[in-house]
Amino acid sequence: MASDLEETLAFQPRFDANGLIPAIVTDAGDGTVLMFAFMNAEALRLSQKTGLAHFWSRSRQSLWKKGETSGETLRIVEILTDCDQDVLQVKVAPQGRGLACHTGRRSCFYRRVDGGTLSLF
Amino acid sequence: MASDLEETLAFQPRFDANGLIPAIVTDAGDGTVLMFAFMNAEALRLSQKTGLAHFWSRSRQSLWKKGETSGETLRIVEILTDCDQDVLQVKVAPQGRGLACHTGRRSCFYRRVDGGTLSLF
Repeated sequence: MASDLEETLAFQPRFDANGLIPAIVTDAGDGTVLMFAFMNAEALRLSQKTGLAHFWSRSRQSLWKKGETSGETLRIVEILTDCDQDVLQVKVAPQGRGLACHTGRRSCFYRRVDGGTLSLF
Repeated sequence: MASDLEETLAFQPRFDANGLIPAIVTDAGDGTVLMFAFMNAEALRLSQKTGLAHFWSRSRQSLWKKGETSGETLRIVEILTDCDQDVLQVKVAPQGRGLACHTGRRSCFYRRVDGGTLSLF
C-alpha cells in the first residue's frame, strides 16, 4: 500500500516497468540540480557500494559509470527517496572539473524557458 | 540532432513515448527539491498559461492541477530545461501552507537512504 511506502523505514525502491528509477542529481554543497538520469537495480547497487554515481543509459542500453571517460565523476554524499519510493535524489560532490553536463557545463539545466524560446543564464 | 537541441534557443520539449516529460520541482527560494512529477503537453501549456503547476497523473490518468483540492498550489517562478530538452526543472513559490507533499510535508524527499534502511530527517 502507498501509505506503507510513505512511512516505512525500509528501503523498497520501486523500479518502473523498464526496471528503472529516476534519479535527480543535486550538488550537495548548494543544492543546484546538476543532471537527471535513470538507475536500474545494478546501477543503484554499484552507486551504493562504490560511492560513485552509476546510471543506466537508455540510449546506449548499458550501465554507465558517470565520468568514466570524462573524469567528471560524482561522489555520492547522500541519497534520498521520495514519499512513494519511486524517485531518488542523489546529492553529490562533483569531482574532476565539476562539469557534470556532457556539454561542458556545470549543470545540464542552463536554459530558462520563456514561452516558446529559451535563454541562457 | 542532439547537438542542435543542446544549443538551440528554441524550446522543443521532448515528450517520451507516453507523451510525458519529467518535471523536477524545486523551491525557487532555497533550491530544495520539493517533488517530482510528469507533465504532458497540456499540463505544460496550462502551467505556462496560468503560472500554476499542472501535471499529468499517471495513476489517475488525468490532468492534475497541483493543489486543486488541498490548496497547496505551486506558483511557477521559472522553468528550466536540460541539455537535450527531455527534462524540466520547475522553480516554484509554494502557496497554501507550503506543504507540497501529499503526506503533509514540505518536500516529498524526507528520508535518507542508509544501505537498505531509511532515516527521517
